[in-house]
Amino acid sequence: MGNCSQGCKDYFSRQKNTNIRLTLPVVCFVWQIAMIILFGVFIRYDKESNAHWVETKAHDNITSDIENDFYFRYPSFQDVHVMIFVGFGFLMTFLKRYSFGAVGFNFLIASFGLQWALLMQGWFHSLDPQTGKIFIGVESLINADFCVAGCLIAYGAVLGKVSPVQLLVMTLFGVTLFAVEEYIILNLLHARDAGGSMVIHTFGGYYGLAISRVLYRPNLHQSKRMQGSVYHSDTFAMIGTLFLWMFWPSFNSAITDHGDGQHRAVINTYLCLASTVLTTVAISSLSQKTGKLDMVHIQNSTLAGGVALGTAAEFMISPYGALIVGFFCGIISTMGYIFISPFLEKTLKIQDTCGIHNLHAMPGVIGGIVGAITAAAASESVYGKQGLINTFDFTGDFKDRTVLTQGGYQAAGMCVSIVFGVVGGAIVGSILKLPIWGDPADENCFDDEVYWESIKLLHYTDHTEDISHK
Amino acid sequence: MGNCSQGCKDYFSRQKNTNIRLTLPVVCFVWQIAMIILFGVFIRYDKESNAHWVETKAHDNITSDIENDFYFRYPSFQDVHVMIFVGFGFLMTFLKRYSFGAVGFNFLIASFGLQWALLMQGWFHSLDPQTGKIFIGVESLINADFCVAGCLIAYGAVLGKVSPVQLLVMTLFGVTLFAVEEYIILNLLHARDAGGSMVIHTFGGYYGLAISRVLYRPNLHQSKRMQGSVYHSDTFAMIGTLFLWMFWPSFNSAITDHGDGQHRAVINTYLCLASTVLTTVAISSLSQKTGKLDMVHIQNSTLAGGVALGTAAEFMISPYGALIVGFFCGIISTMGYIFISPFLEKTLKIQDTCGIHNLHAMPGVIGGIVGAITAAAASESVYGKQGLINTFDFTGDFKDRTVLTQGGYQAAGMCVSIVFGVVGGAIVGSILKLPIWGDPADENCFDDEVYWESIKLLHYTDHTEDISHK
Amino acid sequence: MGNCSQGCKDYFSRQKNTNIRLTLPVVCFVWQIAMIILFGVFIRYDKESNAHWVETKAHDNITSDIENDFYFRYPSFQDVHVMIFVGFGFLMTFLKRYSFGAVGFNFLIASFGLQWALLMQGWFHSLDPQTGKIFIGVESLINADFCVAGCLIAYGAVLGKVSPVQLLVMTLFGVTLFAVEEYIILNLLHARDAGGSMVIHTFGGYYGLAISRVLYRPNLHQSKRMQGSVYHSDTFAMIGTLFLWMFWPSFNSAITDHGDGQHRAVINTYLCLASTVLTTVAISSLSQKTGKLDMVHIQNSTLAGGVALGTAAEFMISPYGALIVGFFCGIISTMGYIFISPFLEKTLKIQDTCGIHNLHAMPGVIGGIVGAITAAAASESVYGKQGLINTFDFTGDFKDRTVLTQGGYQAAGMCVSIVFGVVGGAIVGSILKLPIWGDPADENCFDDEVYWESIKLLHYTDHTEDISHK
Repeated sequence: MGNCSQGCKDYFSRQKNTNIRLTLPVVCFVWQIAMIILFGVFIRYDKESNAHWVETKAHDNITSDIENDFYFRYPSFQDVHVMIFVGFGFLMTFLKRYSFGAVGFNFLIASFGLQWALLMQGWFHSLDPQTGKIFIGVESLINADFCVAGCLIAYGAVLGKVSPVQLLVMTLFGVTLFAVEEYIILNLLHARDAGGSMVIHTFGGYYGLAISRVLYRPNLHQSKRMQGSVYHSDTFAMIGTLFLWMFWPSFNSAITDHGDGQHRAVINTYLCLASTVLTTVAISSLSQKTGKLDMVHIQNSTLAGGVALGTAAEFMISPYGALIVGFFCGIISTMGYIFISPFLEKTLKIQDTCGIHNLHAMPGVIGGIVGAITAAAASESVYGKQGLINTFDFTGDFKDRTVLTQGGYQAAGMCVSIVFGVVGGAIVGSILKLPIWGDPADENCFDDEVYWESIKLLHYTDHTEDISHK
Repeated sequence: MGNCSQGCKDYFSRQKNTNIRLTLPVVCFVWQIAMIILFGVFIRYDKESNAHWVETKAHDNITSDIENDFYFRYPSFQDVHVMIFVGFGFLMTFLKRYSFGAVGFNFLIASFGLQWALLMQGWFHSLDPQTGKIFIGVESLINADFCVAGCLIAYGAVLGKVSPVQLLVMTLFGVTLFAVEEYIILNLLHARDAGGSMVIHTFGGYYGLAISRVLYRPNLHQSKRMQGSVYHSDTFAMIGTLFLWMFWPSFNSAITDHGDGQHRAVINTYLCLASTVLTTVAISSLSQKTGKLDMVHIQNSTLAGGVALGTAAEFMISPYGALIVGFFCGIISTMGYIFISPFLEKTLKIQDTCGIHNLHAMPGVIGGIVGAITAAAASESVYGKQGLINTFDFTGDFKDRTVLTQGGYQAAGMCVSIVFGVVGGAIVGSILKLPIWGDPADENCFDDEVYWESIKLLHYTDHTEDISHK
Repeated sequence: MGNCSQGCKDYFSRQKNTNIRLTLPVVCFVWQIAMIILFGVFIRYDKESNAHWVETKAHDNITSDIENDFYFRYPSFQDVHVMIFVGFGFLMTFLKRYSFGAVGFNFLIASFGLQWALLMQGWFHSLDPQTGKIFIGVESLINADFCVAGCLIAYGAVLGKVSPVQLLVMTLFGVTLFAVEEYIILNLLHARDAGGSMVIHTFGGYYGLAISRVLYRPNLHQSKRMQGSVYHSDTFAMIGTLFLWMFWPSFNSAITDHGDGQHRAVINTYLCLASTVLTTVAISSLSQKTGKLDMVHIQNSTLAGGVALGTAAEFMISPYGALIVGFFCGIISTMGYIFISPFLEKTLKIQDTCGIHNLHAMPGVIGGIVGAITAAAASESVYGKQGLINTFDFTGDFKDRTVLTQGGYQAAGMCVSIVFGVVGGAIVGSILKLPIWGDPADENCFDDEVYWESIKLLHYTDHTEDISHK
């Protein structure tokens, strides 16, 4: 990137044009029409959401409608859905003048991404070889939401510095990369990662950081007056934090095994997150002269425990094990905000608006390691013979795999997610550097007025008189 | 209305008196006491919420408590409940100085209406002929919330221009009308409308618009300074938007058939809404010179897809069919805000504060049409023999009805809901025009200070010194 | 308290030091480490969340995973979780400059308390005598959240006047006292109290009031400028109100009997709360010269019905009975804000920031009485023979207890909760009076700047220039 000639440099640094009146509608329309066509060709209801279910029931000797997977997973799905749209959206409203951008663009790219995710994940995981169709049910919706989460995490690194068109491009490639790495990790390596420490958080974190690195803005200080929060914007952000925090047990248990699998994942995540809050508060207070707390830490680091238990939540990590993971995650994540983020920015030139390195990338890696260790330490005495098989899915091609080998594959999976994040992010970042996407000038960063009408009046108002903000 | 003599005119245009210290408490008390008496006479627990359930189980050979309808519907009920109180309430907080009125009056009329709805719907749908009692369970609560939704939609048209007493009167008649049209559409015509495109949204929309027409205020420009949003009020409104958007799959599936019915309704609504977001963004961006997005559109039109799938969500409309419905609804609803709302106001003298014509009335009609077409196009090959019977409830008196006939009755149902909305609204509007309800003067519209104490102090504060709003 | 000598007085009234950089981290770290050790020694997964579940199923002839208690209680658990963190947290954001303190400290003490609650409740209720272990599942998590609720209620009385360290101490003792009184009421007296009118609300309310009495600040008027709300802070508080209101049916039904028990508790609470809203509005309007509504009442008194049905919700109180309870609670609670709170403050020197006397203590006592009467009035004709046994758990040692005796024990239970609240609060208050906890001076009360960094800037901002709050 830095080697291009003077002409190239001029091209890249010409006056920014944030008019997206052509590109944004075109991308939305073309994409949505493509989705309709592809869904028409590929996507069908699965046997539990199909009107033929009454026949399926008879055929499979299912005695009650309550055995439909819908009733096992729908409450968790709705919690995950809230995390994606309210959780991630409001978490990013902390900037004093980027709340519309945070909530609104989050809404846009999540809606955009989940459709593509259903297709990509379907092709890789559940394409029926006979019919050539993808059959979807409530678990597919959860997985699509998960996939989108990876891209929303990445958005956190570039919040306030990109255009909505760039976000759509980033999401398009992000979902694609996600589906591939997920296929490698879960299917080829047969690693377990129900809550996505590796697949979602590590990948999403490094993907966003790599993009932010490529899009480095040396003169970002020009928008300094916008780079802060006000009291109410921080309160809004707490809505995001709390819905993420409360529903994280649902996130980590949404696609785990019926019965004890979901039950245990909830208990572990609940405990781990509680522990994280205490150490986050402790470190945050230690970091200030008079022991004051910092909203940045409370809003973000309190969530690190949920990320770090994404892999191991369904394992028999035991309640105190969950507390230990949370204990260290709160410390590490908060220290990340205090020490590592400034380092990343000054030395590595990574401008990470929301600190996703501390909330997703690092805790994700921790989660991968915890998962590998917990898997390697599993034993028949703790899990029971059948419990071990069920938990690690030691069936079919993998029926002879030992827990030690499983631990190795878990670790391998984590490396795959890092590589996909870093390399994928670098490539996508280069694409986003093209000066055609309508990104804002340095002095307009963190101010969503560039992309949002600033005043809204009722129709029966005479528009000749302006009503300015406040 | 315009034909009354001078004396009559004077009577109607005399100085507005917004003192509701007598009327509001009287209406609340009288109403609540009436409810207690009527509940005492009519309402009882149904067999699934009665302590005799243990005997019912034995008698009906039910093996497990999990077969209680409670476990099929309670998670959806709670989502619907959130939509009614937080969704509708916060969606209307966008005005800079009407947030208390939006959330608070929404709270009041929903609580008021749901009790009356349980009785009205009970009398029409589930009055036991032998005992003369209405037996209620979780499905009754969902239906009561649905019924109230119709009135909250209507509130959107008159937001900021009416008194709480008017809202209570409007809700009283609204629930009554709702129960009758619902009885005609669902029982007599035997149309299907699980998510209420016709019964809830079309009716509620036209009911509100007709009332707003009758209450037309030619001098509304006098409150111009209040007719807009500020940054934080728009952010609050996004809370409403997102909870409505996320939980709409629960809304459309809450009372559909157990098993595949609920499962399919969720998938369809989820997909439809995602598609709506993209076309809403596209049209919103196209409507501005530089492609900026307008919060009005993002807050409202993104939801139109959920409305339009209210009837067809439980049908085998197929995933791509759901995307197509969402595609067009986003376009039509957003264009409604841009072109139709100003037209309605200038030409038809309908002042529609929240644009419910674009969010509920029009998409509701589309939903009715989509439902009729989808029903008429249903076939045994797609649904299966039993699936077809279950989905359209072709049993009893209706066991010989063909899908084509069903399509016709669906269309007839839509007409009924429009007629009830328009005629009912016109009549109720005339009642609300009486100068006894404490509605605000034109210059006090959209400012909830008329009905809400503006400052709140702790008890231990000396009240002699005022603390005014910032 | 008032008898100490001059030296003692000086000691207590010396310059306040709000530096908590040492105490807060130390308490958090020591506590969290203690939790890890105690969890390691005592806490294990129960048989439904253990990987041995597959064996349990076979052994107990359980045919389906859906019979796991997880699926009966998880949706209710998540609703309760939202009430604890978003409900209680945001309800207290109404003060203009204490939103961080409200949401943030609520978050801290809930996370802190629930771990201790799992241990305390485990030791008292479910310690396995053979293994010496506590086995936890989803019901344990609900109970832990319930236990924490008692302490969060108490926080409401001292909001804005204490340091986070004091809150942690208060929570530590609060949870301990809670577990003991709960053991006495539920196990020894064998009273029923599924929604905690007595155990949670009465105890928590009087605990907080007693503490506030001991910590009485005669010169609190010095922070007068902070003792009020602004428009947006009141809107934030409505988020808390509504999530509490909507999810209260889940609160009262979360741990009731499977099947009809949960079903009935939801119906009763839903109806009772609707009724409360109407009478709250009526009294609030009556209390102002022009009939204006007061946000304090709408935010708080509308919830009193849920509190008052905490004991009786699972009983056959009948739908109109629930409405009657709500009717009177709305009136009494609102009158409490108007008449009793000023009296408590002036005469009894109890400064009750959030008015928990009106929202929790009084309605809790009403709930205890309603529960006792409803229990005493129970009959086999209404409940059925087995229904009566199931509802009141007349098994084992209590199989010969009559409903009349049960009513007496219910009343005794209520007295126990009051005594524990008042005496416990007085003792804990004395501990909190020690001048080592970093509480704020009178003039700094209700301003969370004392404990929270007031500005937050991104890392890439030059910190030499301050960006002050608006």
